[in-house]
Amino acid sequence: MKLNQNYFNVNDSYLFSDIAKKVAAYQAANPQKKVLRLGIGDVTLPLAPAVVAALHSAADEMGRRESFRGYGPEQGYPFLKEAVRGYYDERGIRLDGGEIFISDGAKSDLGNILDIFGQDNVVLIPDPVYPVYVDTNVMAGRKVTYMNATEENGFLPMPDYSVDADIIYLCSPNNPTGAAYSLQQLKEWVDYANAKGAVILYDAAYECFVSEDGLARSIFAVEGAKACAIEFCSFSKMAGFTGTRCGWTVVPEQLAGGKANRMWLRRQTTKFNGVPYIVQRAAEAVFTPDGRRQIAGNINYYMNNARIIARALEELGIWFAGGKNSPYIWLKCPGGMGSWQFFDYLLENAQVVGTPGAGFGRNGEGFFRLTAFGSEEVTREAADRIKRLLLK
Amino acid sequence: MKLNQNYFNVNDSYLFSDIAKKVAAYQAANPQKKVLRLGIGDVTLPLAPAVVAALHSAADEMGRRESFRGYGPEQGYPFLKEAVRGYYDERGIRLDGGEIFISDGAKSDLGNILDIFGQDNVVLIPDPVYPVYVDTNVMAGRKVTYMNATEENGFLPMPDYSVDADIIYLCSPNNPTGAAYSLQQLKEWVDYANAKGAVILYDAAYECFVSEDGLARSIFAVEGAKACAIEFCSFSKMAGFTGTRCGWTVVPEQLAGGKANRMWLRRQTTKFNGVPYIVQRAAEAVFTPDGRRQIAGNINYYMNNARIIARALEELGIWFAGGKNSPYIWLKCPGGMGSWQFFDYLLENAQVVGTPGAGFGRNGEGFFRLTAFGSEEVTREAADRIKRLLLK
Repeated sequence: MKLNQNYFNVNDSYLFSDIAKKVAAYQAANPQKKVLRLGIGDVTLPLAPAVVAALHSAADEMGRRESFRGYGPEQGYPFLKEAVRGYYDERGIRLDGGEIFISDGAKSDLGNILDIFGQDNVVLIPDPVYPVYVDTNVMAGRKVTYMNATEENGFLPMPDYSVDADIIYLCSPNNPTGAAYSLQQLKEWVDYANAKGAVILYDAAYECFVSEDGLARSIFAVEGAKACAIEFCSFSKMAGFTGTRCGWTVVPEQLAGGKANRMWLRRQTTKFNGVPYIVQRAAEAVFTPDGRRQIAGNINYYMNNARIIARALEELGIWFAGGKNSPYIWLKCPGGMGSWQFFDYLLENAQVVGTPGAGFGRNGEGFFRLTAFGSEEVTREAADRIKRLLLK
Repeated sequence: MKLNQNYFNVNDSYLFSDIAKKVAAYQAANPQKKVLRLGIGDVTLPLAPAVVAALHSAADEMGRRESFRGYGPEQGYPFLKEAVRGYYDERGIRLDGGEIFISDGAKSDLGNILDIFGQDNVVLIPDPVYPVYVDTNVMAGRKVTYMNATEENGFLPMPDYSVDADIIYLCSPNNPTGAAYSLQQLKEWVDYANAKGAVILYDAAYECFVSEDGLARSIFAVEGAKACAIEFCSFSKMAGFTGTRCGWTVVPEQLAGGKANRMWLRRQTTKFNGVPYIVQRAAEAVFTPDGRRQIAGNINYYMNNARIIARALEELGIWFAGGKNSPYIWLKCPGGMGSWQFFDYLLENAQVVGTPGAGFGRNGEGFFRLTAFGSEEVTREAADRIKRLLLK
C-alpha cells in the first residue's frame, strides 16, 4: 500500500495541549489560586427543553416496531430540510429543498466538500484562521495562499483582484477573531468570486450571534452568491449541539451549472449514511416556537458575557474585534506583549486563561482570544480581575 | 474552481429505483395482489429496550447543566471504546483502546479511509460487490481491478499471487452473497497481503450473524492480520442502528509501522467531530447483559427467517450461498433465467420482490438476492409462494 504522503506535510497543532500543560503546571505550583477559564470554544449551557423532549419522543418511536426508522435519506429527512428552508425564508432567502443537505456538523462538511473539487485549485485562506481549512487542503496536496487579516482591515480581509484564487474560505462572524462582514463587504467578495470563477466556502457556524443590522447572517442574502458560494451552518453554537452533532450545508443549484449540487449529493450518498433520526428530530425542535425562544435565551446569555468582557476592554482602552456579533473577543495584547507572553502574564497575575492568537496563524501574533461561553459568574470575575491587573 | 473530474466516471446506479418502479407499476396494474418484499437490506425490528433506556437517560443528562456534554473525543468516548475492546476480548482478540475508532457507521469509514492512501494504489475488489467500494475509489481516480466471485469458488475468491494489489476489499459475511470466509481462507488472504505489502479493508458489518465454528467474525482472529488489515464494523445490523448511526473501525498499531493509525486519527480529528454522545451511550448499552440478550433475540429472529428461505430453496434443489451465517440468501436463478428475468417472473407469478444479482456486478448475472429482514409472517408466506411456483 502507498500512504497519502501529503499527510506528512500537515502541521501538528499543540495549541490547546500546550495551554492545558501550562495551566496544569501553574495550578500545581499554586494550588490555592482559583483559575478562571475564558479560553473555552465550546458551549456550556444544556440542550433546550424542547430539544430534550424531541429526543425522548424520537427514542420512543425507535423502540416501537410500527414507528421504527432504519436507513434515512443521506441528505436528511424532508421534515428537517423544510425547517431549515423556513429559517432562511424568514430572512427573505429562498432555497429549494434539494439545495439543503443535513449533516453531522460543519467541520465534517467543510472537510468533505473538498472531495468534489480537483487537486489543482488555488486555495485562498485568511490568516488567522480556524486550522481545519488549512489542514484539510494540505492533506489533499493543494496549494494554500493566505490573505492577511490584520488590525488595519479590522481582521476582515477584502478581495485583491491581482490575486487569483479558485477556492476561497470566508468565516463570518469569524473564529477566532469575532469580526463579521457587512453585506456590502460580502458583495465585494461575491463579485470577485464570480469574476474569477471561484467558489466561496462560507462558514456561517456563528451566524446566530449576529444582532446588528447590515451584517450578513447568510451569504445568500447577497445578490449573485448562489452562482459562487456554498454555505456551511450548524446547530452547534446556535442550540448547543457540539456533542449532539447536526448541521447543514447549502449547495445552490446555480453553482457550476448544477454540477456541484449533484456531485455533493453523490458524495454524501456514497460516503455518508445520514444523521441519526433522533438527532434530526431534536434539530427540528430547535425551530419550533418553544425551541426558538429557549435557544434565544441561551444566545443572550452568552452575548451578555461577551458584553461584560467587551466593556472591561473598552474601559481599559484596549483594541479588540468581535464581542458584539460573536461569542469571541479578539484583543490586542496590551503593552506590545506577544500572544504567549500575555497568556503567561494573565495566568500568573490574574489567574485568567485565554487563547494566544499566535496559535491561529502568523497574523495572530500579538493578539489574544477570550470567549463568552463560560458562566456569567466566572466571566464577571475574570473581567474584574483583568481590569484590576491592567489598570495598575 | 476546478471540479473533481473523476466524479464523472462514477456509474449511476438505478438498481433500487428500477426495482421500486417495477413494483409500483405491477401494484398499480394489480391492486388486488399482495406483494411481499424480500429485497429489503435494512433491519425492521425496533431498537432494544436497553438501548432505548440509554437514549432516554443520555437525553436527560444533556438537558442538565451539570451533566451536559459538548465536544467529545473525535475517536469516541473511552466508555464505548472499552466496551468494543471487551467484545473482541471475549473472542481472544486483544486490542489497544487507541486502535479502536468510533464512527457514525461502516459506510462513512469505508469511504473516508481512502483519504490516508495515495492515489497510485492498485485496488482489488470482488465482483459482485457492495457498490460503494468501487464508487469511492473511482471518485478518487484509482484503478480498480476485479476478482471473480462465482458459483465455482462459492462466491469466495481466493488470492492469486500473479495479481498485484495494494488495497484489497474483503466483506465477510458478504453483502450481497451471504458467503462467509473460514479462518483458514482468511489466513491465505493475510499471507498474500503481507507478501504483497498490501492492506486488506475488511468489512465485518455482518459478523454478528456468524454462528458456525471455523468461520471468521474478525480478521484479527487470524495471525498476521494486524500487520495488514483494517476492520470496519457496525451496530447497524447487529443492533438495528441503521437509522441511529454508530460503528467502529480498528486500525492496528502494527499497520505501516504505526503510521496508518496516526494518519486515521489525524483524518478523524480534522474532518469529523465524533458520534453524538447520546448515540454512544446507546451503543454502549448494546454490550450490557440486557442489551446482549435483547439483540441476540433480534438476530435469531432474522436468522430464523433466513432458515425458512434456505429450507424452501433446498427443497427445490436450487443452489444458493448464504442464509446460514448471513441474513442474505444468494440463489442461482432457476431454469437458466437471467437476474431481471427471474425478478419479473417472481413478481408476476408469486408477487415476491427480491434483488437481481446483476445489480451488484457482472458476476451477479443469473443470481438473485433474498433477505431475512422481513417479518416472519411475510417470510413464511413468500417462501411458500416460491415453493408453489417453482415446484410446478
